[in-house]
Amino acid sequence: MRIDVLTLFPSMFEGQMTEGMLWKARDRGLIDMRTHNIRDWTTDPHRTVDDTPYGGGGGMIMKPDIVARALEAVLNDAPAQTGSRTPVLLMTPQGRLFNHQIAVELSAHERMVILCGRYEGIDDRVRELLVTDEISIGDYVLTGGELPAMVIIDAVIRHIPGVLGAEGAAGRDSHAEGILEGAHYTRPAEFRGLVVPDVLQGGDHAAVERWRHEDGLRRTWRNRPELLRTAPLSDADRRLLAKFAREDAARARSNRDKRG
Amino acid sequence: MRIDVLTLFPSMFEGQMTEGMLWKARDRGLIDMRTHNIRDWTTDPHRTVDDTPYGGGGGMIMKPDIVARALEAVLNDAPAQTGSRTPVLLMTPQGRLFNHQIAVELSAHERMVILCGRYEGIDDRVRELLVTDEISIGDYVLTGGELPAMVIIDAVIRHIPGVLGAEGAAGRDSHAEGILEGAHYTRPAEFRGLVVPDVLQGGDHAAVERWRHEDGLRRTWRNRPELLRTAPLSDADRRLLAKFAREDAARARSNRDKRG
Repeated sequence: MRIDVLTLFPSMFEGQMTEGMLWKARDRGLIDMRTHNIRDWTTDPHRTVDDTPYGGGGGMIMKPDIVARALEAVLNDAPAQTGSRTPVLLMTPQGRLFNHQIAVELSAHERMVILCGRYEGIDDRVRELLVTDEISIGDYVLTGGELPAMVIIDAVIRHIPGVLGAEGAAGRDSHAEGILEGAHYTRPAEFRGLVVPDVLQGGDHAAVERWRHEDGLRRTWRNRPELLRTAPLSDADRRLLAKFAREDAARARSNRDKRG
Repeated sequence: MRIDVLTLFPSMFEGQMTEGMLWKARDRGLIDMRTHNIRDWTTDPHRTVDDTPYGGGGGMIMKPDIVARALEAVLNDAPAQTGSRTPVLLMTPQGRLFNHQIAVELSAHERMVILCGRYEGIDDRVRELLVTDEISIGDYVLTGGELPAMVIIDAVIRHIPGVLGAEGAAGRDSHAEGILEGAHYTRPAEFRGLVVPDVLQGGDHAAVERWRHEDGLRRTWRNRPELLRTAPLSDADRRLLAKFAREDAARARSNRDKRG
Protein backbone atom coordinates (compact mmCIF):
# COMPACT_ATOMS: atom_id res chain seq x y z
CA MET A 1 0.00 0.00 0.00
CA ARG A 2 1.17 3.49 -0.79
CA ILE A 3 0.44 6.01 1.99
CA ASP A 4 0.90 9.75 1.48
CA VAL A 5 0.57 12.13 4.42
CA LEU A 6 0.20 15.89 3.91
CA THR A 7 1.17 17.88 6.99
CA LEU A 8 2.90 21.02 8.23
CA PHE A 9 4.96 18.87 10.62
CA PRO A 10 6.52 15.93 8.71
CA SER A 11 9.12 15.44 11.47
CA MET A 12 6.37 14.29 13.86
CA PHE A 13 6.13 11.08 11.79
CA GLU A 14 9.79 10.13 12.10
CA GLY A 15 9.32 8.25 15.37
CA GLN A 16 6.55 6.12 13.90
CA MET A 17 8.38 5.47 10.63
CA THR A 18 11.38 4.01 12.45
CA GLU A 19 9.24 2.05 14.93
CA GLY A 20 8.97 -1.75 14.71
CA MET A 21 5.93 -2.67 12.66
CA LEU A 22 6.00 0.19 10.17
CA TRP A 23 9.75 -0.02 9.70
CA LYS A 24 9.57 -3.76 8.95
CA ALA A 25 6.59 -3.30 6.62
CA ARG A 26 8.52 -0.66 4.66
CA ASP A 27 11.65 -2.80 4.67
CA ARG A 28 9.67 -5.74 3.25
CA GLY A 29 8.23 -3.48 0.54
CA LEU A 30 4.66 -3.87 1.82
CA ILE A 31 4.23 -0.17 2.64
CA ASP A 32 5.50 2.84 0.71
CA MET A 33 4.87 5.70 3.13
CA ARG A 34 5.76 9.31 2.29
CA THR A 35 5.25 12.56 4.17
CA HIS A 36 4.83 15.88 2.33
CA ASN A 37 5.19 19.35 3.82
CA ILE A 38 2.19 21.43 2.72
CA ARG A 39 4.36 24.53 3.10
CA ASP A 40 6.38 23.39 0.06
CA TRP A 41 3.41 24.41 -2.15
CA THR A 42 3.39 28.06 -1.06
CA THR A 43 4.58 30.64 -3.59
CA ASP A 44 5.04 33.80 -1.47
CA PRO A 45 8.36 34.75 0.16
CA HIS A 46 6.93 34.18 3.68
CA ARG A 47 5.65 30.71 2.76
CA THR A 48 2.24 31.55 4.25
CA VAL A 49 -0.15 28.62 4.74
CA ASP A 50 -2.88 30.26 6.84
CA ASP A 51 -5.07 33.36 6.94
CA THR A 52 -7.74 34.88 9.22
CA PRO A 53 -11.26 33.37 9.18
CA TYR A 54 -14.26 34.97 7.45
CA GLY A 55 -16.73 35.99 10.13
CA GLY A 56 -13.99 36.68 12.68
CA GLY A 57 -13.12 34.75 15.82
CA GLY A 58 -9.79 33.42 17.10
CA GLY A 59 -7.38 31.18 15.26
CA MET A 60 -6.18 30.88 11.70
CA ILE A 61 -7.50 28.81 8.79
CA MET A 62 -5.35 26.89 6.30
CA LYS A 63 -5.69 28.42 2.83
CA PRO A 64 -7.71 26.47 0.23
CA ASP A 65 -5.41 27.24 -2.73
CA ILE A 66 -2.23 25.98 -1.04
CA VAL A 67 -3.80 22.83 0.40
CA ALA A 68 -5.66 21.96 -2.84
CA ARG A 69 -2.45 22.41 -4.88
CA ALA A 70 -0.50 20.17 -2.47
CA LEU A 71 -3.20 17.49 -2.47
CA GLU A 72 -3.52 17.41 -6.27
CA ALA A 73 0.25 17.26 -6.78
CA VAL A 74 0.49 14.28 -4.41
CA LEU A 75 -2.52 12.54 -6.01
CA ASN A 76 -0.98 12.97 -9.45
CA ASP A 77 2.44 11.77 -8.31
CA ALA A 78 1.39 8.12 -8.64
CA PRO A 79 -1.19 6.44 -10.86
CA ALA A 80 -4.68 6.29 -9.34
CA GLN A 81 -5.50 2.91 -7.83
CA THR A 82 -7.31 0.48 -10.05
CA GLY A 83 -11.02 0.07 -9.43
CA SER A 84 -12.44 2.35 -6.74
CA ARG A 85 -11.39 5.94 -6.02
CA THR A 86 -8.29 6.56 -3.86
CA PRO A 87 -9.42 7.40 -0.30
CA VAL A 88 -8.48 10.99 0.61
CA LEU A 89 -8.97 11.19 4.36
CA LEU A 90 -9.30 14.47 6.21
CA MET A 91 -8.45 14.20 9.91
CA THR A 92 -11.07 16.32 11.67
CA PRO A 93 -13.13 16.22 14.88
CA GLN A 94 -16.15 16.83 12.59
CA GLY A 95 -15.73 13.48 10.83
CA ARG A 96 -17.32 10.08 11.31
CA LEU A 97 -15.85 8.02 14.10
CA PHE A 98 -12.96 5.73 13.15
CA ASN A 99 -13.31 2.09 14.20
CA HIS A 100 -12.06 -1.44 13.60
CA GLN A 101 -14.35 -1.96 10.60
CA ILE A 102 -13.15 1.19 8.81
CA ALA A 103 -9.54 0.10 9.43
CA VAL A 104 -10.22 -3.26 7.77
CA GLU A 105 -11.97 -1.57 4.81
CA LEU A 106 -9.13 0.92 4.24
CA SER A 107 -6.53 -1.86 4.36
CA ALA A 108 -7.97 -3.29 1.12
CA HIS A 109 -6.99 -0.18 -0.88
CA GLU A 110 -3.77 0.11 -2.89
CA ARG A 111 -3.37 3.72 -1.87
CA MET A 112 -4.53 6.11 0.82
CA VAL A 113 -3.88 9.84 1.18
CA ILE A 114 -4.16 11.52 4.59
CA LEU A 115 -4.58 15.27 5.05
CA CYS A 116 -3.67 16.71 8.46
CA GLY A 117 -5.12 20.07 9.51
CA ARG A 118 -3.62 22.46 12.03
CA TYR A 119 -4.75 25.70 13.69
CA GLU A 120 -8.55 26.11 13.56
CA GLY A 121 -8.80 23.82 10.53
CA ILE A 122 -8.70 23.85 6.73
CA ASP A 123 -10.92 26.02 4.50
CA ASP A 124 -14.05 23.92 4.01
CA ARG A 125 -13.90 24.11 0.20
CA VAL A 126 -10.95 21.67 0.21
CA ARG A 127 -13.20 19.12 1.89
CA GLU A 128 -15.99 19.79 -0.58
CA LEU A 129 -13.76 19.49 -3.66
CA LEU A 130 -11.17 16.84 -2.87
CA VAL A 131 -11.79 14.88 0.33
CA THR A 132 -13.55 11.50 0.14
CA ASP A 133 -13.85 10.84 3.88
CA GLU A 134 -13.78 12.99 7.03
CA ILE A 135 -12.55 10.96 9.97
CA SER A 136 -12.33 11.55 13.71
CA ILE A 137 -10.48 9.11 16.00
CA GLY A 138 -12.55 9.99 19.09
CA ASP A 139 -14.56 12.57 21.01
CA TYR A 140 -11.69 14.74 22.18
CA VAL A 141 -9.87 17.71 20.68
CA LEU A 142 -6.26 17.55 19.51
CA THR A 143 -3.83 20.21 18.32
CA GLY A 144 -3.59 18.83 14.80
CA GLY A 145 -4.32 15.90 12.52
CA GLU A 146 -0.86 14.36 12.85
CA LEU A 147 -1.52 12.05 15.82
CA PRO A 148 -4.84 10.87 14.32
CA ALA A 149 -3.02 10.13 11.04
CA MET A 150 -0.45 7.99 12.89
CA VAL A 151 -3.25 6.16 14.72
CA ILE A 152 -5.05 5.40 11.47
CA ILE A 153 -1.87 4.24 9.71
CA ASP A 154 -1.06 1.91 12.61
CA ALA A 155 -4.61 0.52 12.80
CA VAL A 156 -4.86 0.03 9.01
CA ILE A 157 -1.54 -1.50 8.04
CA ARG A 158 -1.74 -4.30 10.62
CA HIS A 159 -4.53 -5.79 8.47
CA ILE A 160 -2.35 -5.93 5.35
CA PRO A 161 -1.18 -9.53 4.83
CA GLY A 162 2.45 -9.96 5.87
CA VAL A 163 2.75 -6.81 7.96
CA LEU A 164 2.33 -8.42 11.38
CA GLY A 165 4.39 -11.43 10.29
CA ALA A 166 5.27 -13.86 13.06
CA GLU A 167 4.16 -11.36 15.72
CA GLY A 168 0.62 -12.72 15.55
CA ALA A 169 -2.49 -12.28 13.47
CA ALA A 170 -4.81 -9.28 13.85
CA GLY A 171 -7.94 -11.43 13.82
CA ARG A 172 -8.03 -12.29 17.52
CA ASP A 173 -7.54 -8.77 18.92
CA SER A 174 -10.03 -6.88 21.03
CA HIS A 175 -12.84 -5.43 18.90
CA ALA A 176 -12.33 -8.09 16.21
CA GLU A 177 -14.99 -10.21 17.96
CA GLY A 178 -17.15 -7.31 19.13
CA ILE A 179 -16.21 -7.76 22.80
CA LEU A 180 -13.01 -6.98 24.71
CA GLU A 181 -10.18 -9.47 25.29
CA GLY A 182 -9.74 -11.29 28.60
CA ALA A 183 -6.77 -10.92 30.99
CA HIS A 184 -3.27 -12.11 30.10
CA TYR A 185 -0.74 -13.61 32.50
CA THR A 186 2.85 -14.80 32.31
CA ARG A 187 5.35 -16.12 34.86
CA PRO A 188 5.67 -16.13 37.85
CA ALA A 189 2.52 -18.09 38.77
CA GLU A 190 2.30 -16.09 41.99
CA PHE A 191 3.20 -12.42 42.13
CA ARG A 192 2.74 -10.40 45.33
CA GLY A 193 0.06 -12.79 46.56
CA LEU A 194 -1.89 -12.78 43.28
CA VAL A 195 -2.10 -16.19 41.61
CA VAL A 196 -2.69 -16.95 37.90
CA PRO A 197 -6.13 -18.69 37.54
CA ASP A 198 -5.81 -22.51 37.77
CA VAL A 199 -7.50 -23.12 34.44
CA LEU A 200 -4.78 -21.16 32.59
CA GLN A 201 -2.09 -23.21 34.30
CA GLY A 202 -3.73 -26.51 33.21
CA GLY A 203 -3.62 -28.08 29.75
CA ASP A 204 -7.34 -28.08 28.86
CA HIS A 205 -7.39 -25.93 25.73
CA ALA A 206 -11.20 -25.74 25.49
CA ALA A 207 -11.44 -24.70 29.15
CA VAL A 208 -8.80 -21.98 28.55
CA GLU A 209 -10.81 -20.61 25.60
CA ARG A 210 -14.00 -20.62 27.68
CA TRP A 211 -12.25 -18.77 30.55
CA ARG A 212 -10.83 -16.16 28.18
CA HIS A 213 -14.15 -15.57 26.50
CA GLU A 214 -15.94 -15.25 29.86
CA ASP A 215 -13.29 -12.86 31.22
CA GLY A 216 -13.55 -10.75 28.04
CA LEU A 217 -17.31 -10.64 28.44
CA ARG A 218 -16.92 -9.58 32.08
CA ARG A 219 -14.56 -6.74 31.12
CA THR A 220 -16.93 -5.60 28.42
CA TRP A 221 -19.79 -5.62 30.94
CA ARG A 222 -17.69 -3.59 33.40
CA ASN A 223 -15.88 -1.09 31.15
CA ARG A 224 -17.84 -0.86 27.88
CA PRO A 225 -21.40 -2.15 28.41
CA GLU A 226 -22.63 -0.25 25.31
CA LEU A 227 -20.62 -2.65 23.09
CA LEU A 228 -22.93 -5.48 24.18
CA ARG A 229 -25.81 -3.88 22.29
CA THR A 230 -24.15 -4.75 18.95
CA ALA A 231 -21.85 -7.70 19.83
CA PRO A 232 -22.82 -11.14 18.47
CA LEU A 233 -23.83 -12.99 21.67
CA SER A 234 -24.63 -16.68 22.18
CA ASP A 235 -27.28 -17.97 24.59
CA ALA A 236 -24.46 -18.93 26.98
CA ASP A 237 -23.16 -15.32 26.77
CA ARG A 238 -26.61 -14.00 27.67
CA ARG A 239 -26.81 -16.31 30.69
CA LEU A 240 -23.37 -15.05 31.81
CA LEU A 241 -24.45 -11.42 31.47
CA ALA A 242 -27.53 -12.17 33.57
CA LYS A 243 -25.19 -13.69 36.18
CA PHE A 244 -22.96 -10.55 36.16
CA ALA A 245 -26.08 -8.42 36.64
CA ARG A 246 -27.20 -10.56 39.61
CA GLU A 247 -23.69 -10.33 41.13
CA ASP A 248 -23.74 -6.52 40.76
CA ALA A 249 -27.17 -6.34 42.37
CA ALA A 250 -26.07 -8.56 45.28
CA ARG A 251 -22.97 -6.40 45.77
CA ALA A 252 -25.07 -3.22 45.75
CA ARG A 253 -27.47 -4.77 48.33
CA SER A 254 -24.58 -5.85 50.53
CA ASN A 255 -23.03 -2.35 50.40
CA ARG A 256 -26.41 -0.82 51.28
CA ASP A 257 -26.83 -3.19 54.24
CA LYS A 258 -23.34 -2.32 55.50
CA ARG A 259 -24.11 1.38 55.35
CA GLY A 260 -27.61 0.93 56.90
CA MET B 1 2.03 19.20 35.40
CA ARG B 2 4.55 16.40 35.60
CA ILE B 3 3.98 13.64 33.03
CA ASP B 4 5.88 10.35 33.16
CA VAL B 5 5.55 7.85 30.33
CA LEU B 6 6.72 4.25 30.70
CA THR B 7 7.35 2.56 27.36
CA LEU B 8 9.63 0.19 25.48
CA PHE B 9 9.96 2.81 22.71
CA PRO B 10 10.87 6.22 24.23
CA SER B 11 12.14 7.44 20.86
CA MET B 12 8.58 7.39 19.47
CA PHE B 13 7.85 10.42 21.70
CA GLU B 14 10.65 12.60 20.34
CA GLY B 15 8.57 14.00 17.49
CA GLN B 16 5.81 15.05 19.86
CA MET B 17 8.18 16.51 22.46
CA THR B 18 9.76 18.85 19.91
CA GLU B 19 6.41 19.78 18.29
CA GLY B 20 4.90 23.25 18.82
CA MET B 21 2.47 23.10 21.72
CA LEU B 22 4.31 20.61 23.92
CA TRP B 23 7.70 22.20 23.25
CA LYS B 24 6.42 25.64 24.24
CA ALA B 25 4.67 24.28 27.32
CA ARG B 26 7.91 22.62 28.44
CA ASP B 27 9.90 25.75 27.61
CA ARG B 28 7.52 27.86 29.76
CA GLY B 29 7.90 25.39 32.64
CA LEU B 30 4.21 24.37 32.50
CA ILE B 31 4.91 20.74 31.63
CA ASP B 32 7.69 18.49 32.91
CA MET B 33 7.44 15.45 30.62
CA ARG B 34 9.77 12.48 30.94
CA THR B 35 9.91 9.15 29.14
CA HIS B 36 11.27 6.00 30.80
CA ASN B 37 12.39 2.82 29.09
CA ILE B 38 10.82 -0.13 30.91
CA ARG B 39 13.74 -2.26 29.72
CA ASP B 40 16.03 -0.31 32.08
CA TRP B 41 14.44 -2.19 35.01
CA THR B 42 15.40 -5.66 33.78
CA THR B 43 18.13 -7.47 35.67
CA ASP B 44 19.03 -10.37 33.35
CA PRO B 45 21.82 -10.17 30.75
CA HIS B 46 19.31 -10.35 27.86
CA ARG B 47 17.20 -7.51 29.30
CA THR B 48 14.04 -9.61 28.87
CA VAL B 49 10.73 -7.77 29.29
CA ASP B 50 8.28 -10.41 28.02
CA ASP B 51 7.43 -14.09 28.39
CA THR B 52 4.93 -16.59 26.95
CA PRO B 53 1.29 -16.45 28.12
CA TYR B 54 -0.27 -18.91 30.58
CA GLY B 55 -2.88 -20.90 28.69
CA GLY B 56 -0.98 -20.72 25.40
CA GLY B 57 -1.83 -18.78 22.27
CA GLY B 58 0.24 -16.44 20.15
CA GLY B 59 2.10 -13.37 21.30
CA MET B 60 4.14 -12.44 24.35
CA ILE B 61 3.09 -10.83 27.64
CA MET B 62 5.05 -8.13 29.46
CA LYS B 63 6.34 -9.48 32.79
CA PRO B 64 4.65 -8.24 35.98
CA ASP B 65 7.82 -7.97 38.07
CA ILE B 66 9.68 -5.74 35.57
CA VAL B 67 6.73 -3.45 34.86
CA ALA B 68 5.77 -3.12 38.55
CA ARG B 69 9.36 -2.28 39.48
CA ALA B 70 9.57 0.39 36.74
CA LEU B 71 6.22 1.90 37.71
CA GLU B 72 7.05 2.07 41.42
CA ALA B 73 10.47 3.60 40.78
CA VAL B 74 8.91 6.33 38.63
CA LEU B 75 6.10 6.97 41.15
CA ASN B 76 8.66 7.30 43.95
CA ASP B 77 10.91 9.57 41.90
CA ALA B 78 8.78 12.62 42.75
CA PRO B 79 6.57 13.38 45.75
CA ALA B 80 2.97 12.20 45.35
CA GLN B 81 0.59 14.97 44.36
CA THR B 82 -1.22 16.70 47.16
CA GLY B 83 -4.85 15.68 47.71
CA SER B 84 -6.05 12.92 45.43
CA ARG B 85 -4.08 9.91 44.21
CA THR B 86 -1.78 10.33 41.19
CA PRO B 87 -3.55 8.94 38.10
CA VAL B 88 -1.70 5.88 36.75
CA LEU B 89 -3.20 5.31 33.31
CA LEU B 90 -2.87 2.02 31.45
CA MET B 91 -3.33 2.35 27.69
CA THR B 92 -5.43 -0.66 26.69
CA PRO B 93 -8.24 -1.48 24.27
CA GLN B 94 -10.01 -3.01 27.31
CA GLY B 95 -10.30 0.36 29.07
CA ARG B 96 -13.08 2.92 29.28
CA LEU B 97 -13.36 5.22 26.30
CA PHE B 98 -11.34 8.45 26.46
CA ASN B 99 -13.28 11.66 25.80
CA HIS B 100 -13.27 15.44 26.20
CA GLN B 101 -14.57 15.26 29.77
CA ILE B 102 -11.83 12.85 30.92
CA ALA B 103 -9.22 15.14 29.30
CA VAL B 104 -10.53 18.12 31.29
CA GLU B 105 -10.57 16.08 34.52
CA LEU B 106 -7.00 14.82 34.06
CA SER B 107 -5.74 18.35 33.33
CA ALA B 108 -6.54 19.34 36.94
CA HIS B 109 -3.95 16.90 38.36
CA GLU B 110 -0.40 17.91 39.28
CA ARG B 111 0.95 14.62 37.99
CA MET B 112 -0.03 11.84 35.62
CA VAL B 113 1.76 8.57 34.87
CA ILE B 114 1.09 6.70 31.62
CA LEU B 115 1.94 3.04 31.09
CA CYS B 116 2.22 1.82 27.49
CA GLY B 117 1.83 -1.87 26.74
CA ARG B 118 3.28 -3.73 23.73
CA TYR B 119 2.92 -7.23 22.32
CA GLU B 120 -0.24 -8.98 23.57
CA GLY B 121 -0.36 -6.75 26.67
CA ILE B 122 0.88 -6.53 30.25
CA ASP B 123 0.36 -9.22 32.91
CA ASP B 124 -3.02 -8.37 34.45
CA ARG B 125 -1.68 -8.26 37.99
CA VAL B 126 0.07 -4.94 37.25
CA ARG B 127 -3.34 -3.46 36.48
CA GLU B 128 -4.83 -4.96 39.63
CA LEU B 129 -2.05 -3.69 41.92
CA LEU B 130 -0.94 -0.34 40.53
CA VAL B 131 -3.16 1.08 37.79
CA THR B 132 -5.88 3.60 38.69
CA ASP B 133 -7.51 3.90 35.26
CA GLU B 134 -7.61 1.74 32.10
CA ILE B 135 -8.14 3.92 29.06
CA SER B 136 -8.86 3.23 25.39
CA ILE B 137 -8.81 6.03 22.82
CA GLY B 138 -11.25 4.30 20.45
CA ASP B 139 -12.67 1.05 19.08
CA TYR B 140 -9.71 0.00 16.98
CA VAL B 141 -6.59 -2.04 17.68
CA LEU B 142 -3.10 -0.51 17.72
CA THR B 143 0.37 -2.05 17.95
CA GLY B 144 1.14 -0.48 21.33
CA GLY B 145 0.12 2.12 23.88
CA GLU B 146 2.54 4.78 22.61
CA LEU B 147 0.23 6.52 20.11
CA PRO B 148 -2.68 6.50 22.61
CA ALA B 149 -0.35 8.04 25.23
CA MET B 150 0.59 10.85 22.81
CA VAL B 151 -3.08 11.45 22.02
CA ILE B 152 -3.96 11.68 25.70
CA ILE B 153 -1.05 14.01 26.48
CA ASP B 154 -2.05 16.33 23.61
CA ALA B 155 -5.74 16.34 24.60
CA VAL B 156 -5.00 16.91 28.30
CA ILE B 157 -2.32 19.59 28.32
CA ARG B 158 -4.27 21.99 26.09
CA HIS B 159 -6.63 22.49 29.05
CA ILE B 160 -3.80 23.57 31.37
CA PRO B 161 -3.90 27.38 31.73
CA GLY B 162 -1.15 29.04 29.69
CA VAL B 163 -0.40 26.09 27.40
CA LEU B 164 -2.38 27.25 24.36
CA GLY B 165 -1.32 30.88 24.97
CA ALA B 166 -2.21 33.26 22.17
CA GLU B 167 -3.14 30.36 19.86
CA GLY B 168 -6.71 30.40 21.20
CA ALA B 169 -8.66 28.97 24.10
CA ALA B 170 -9.74 25.32 24.23
CA GLY B 171 -13.28 26.18 25.34
CA ARG B 172 -14.77 26.75 21.88
CA ASP B 173 -13.50 23.60 20.19
CA SER B 174 -15.66 20.82 18.82
CA HIS B 175 -16.98 18.57 21.62
CA ALA B 176 -16.69 21.38 24.19
CA GLU B 177 -20.34 22.29 23.43
CA GLY B 178 -21.55 18.74 22.79
CA ILE B 179 -21.99 19.28 19.04
CA LEU B 180 -19.47 19.60 16.20
CA GLU B 181 -18.04 22.90 14.95
CA GLY B 182 -19.28 24.56 11.76
CA ALA B 183 -17.24 25.14 8.58
CA HIS B 184 -14.31 27.58 8.44
CA TYR B 185 -13.33 29.73 5.46
CA THR B 186 -10.54 32.15 4.64
CA ARG B 187 -9.58 34.14 1.52
CA PRO B 188 -10.19 34.08 -1.40
CA ALA B 189 -13.96 34.71 -1.20
CA GLU B 190 -14.40 32.60 -4.33
CA PHE B 191 -12.32 29.49 -4.96
CA ARG B 192 -12.98 27.27 -7.98
CA GLY B 193 -16.57 28.45 -8.18
CA LEU B 194 -17.31 27.93 -4.49
CA VAL B 195 -18.22 31.13 -2.64
CA VAL B 196 -17.90 31.84 1.10
CA PRO B 197 -21.46 32.26 2.58
CA ASP B 198 -22.60 35.92 2.49
CA VAL B 199 -23.33 36.08 6.19
CA LEU B 200 -19.67 35.32 7.03
CA GLN B 201 -18.54 38.11 4.71
CA GLY B 202 -20.84 40.63 6.43
CA GLY B 203 -20.27 42.33 9.78
CA ASP B 204 -23.28 41.06 11.75
CA HIS B 205 -21.62 39.21 14.60
CA ALA B 206 -24.82 37.68 15.99
CA ALA B 207 -25.78 36.40 12.51
CA VAL B 208 -22.29 34.85 12.13
CA GLU B 209 -22.69 33.05 15.46
CA ARG B 210 -26.13 31.78 14.44
CA TRP B 211 -24.78 30.52 11.09
CA ARG B 212 -21.87 28.73 12.77
CA HIS B 213 -24.11 27.09 15.33
CA GLU B 214 -26.56 25.96 12.64
CA ASP B 215 -23.77 24.59 10.41
CA GLY B 216 -22.29 22.74 13.41
CA LEU B 217 -25.69 21.25 14.15
CA ARG B 218 -26.06 20.19 10.50
CA ARG B 219 -22.64 18.45 10.55
CA THR B 220 -23.53 16.68 13.77
CA TRP B 221 -26.82 15.53 12.22
CA ARG B 222 -24.96 14.25 9.14
CA ASN B 223 -21.78 12.70 10.60
CA ARG B 224 -22.46 11.96 14.29
CA PRO B 225 -26.23 11.85 14.93
CA GLU B 226 -25.72 9.83 18.13
CA LEU B 227 -24.13 12.91 19.78
CA LEU B 228 -27.52 14.67 19.59
CA ARG B 229 -28.93 12.24 22.18
CA THR B 230 -26.79 13.86 24.91
CA ALA B 231 -26.06 17.37 23.54
CA PRO B 232 -27.75 20.31 25.31
CA LEU B 233 -30.27 21.48 22.66
CA SER B 234 -32.46 24.59 22.62
CA ASP B 235 -36.01 24.70 21.20
CA ALA B 236 -34.56 26.46 18.13
CA ASP B 237 -32.06 23.58 17.73
CA ARG B 238 -34.90 21.05 17.84
CA ARG B 239 -36.80 22.96 15.16
CA LEU B 240 -33.64 22.97 12.99
CA LEU B 241 -33.20 19.21 13.44
CA ALA B 242 -36.81 18.68 12.39
CA LYS B 243 -36.06 20.78 9.29
CA PHE B 244 -32.95 18.68 8.47
CA ALA B 245 -35.08 15.53 8.82
CA ARG B 246 -37.73 16.95 6.44
CA GLU B 247 -34.97 17.92 3.93
CA ASP B 248 -33.54 14.38 4.09
CA ALA B 249 -36.99 12.88 3.56
CA ALA B 250 -37.66 15.19 0.58
CA ARG B 251 -34.29 14.26 -0.93
CA ALA B 252 -34.99 10.54 -0.47
CA ARG B 253 -38.44 10.96 -2.13
CA SER B 254 -36.91 12.91 -5.02
CA ASN B 255 -34.23 10.22 -5.57
CA ARG B 256 -36.91 7.52 -5.50
CA ASP B 257 -39.03 9.43 -8.06
CA LYS B 258 -35.98 9.84 -10.36
CA ARG B 259 -35.30 6.11 -10.24
CA GLY B 260 -39.01 5.21 -10.58
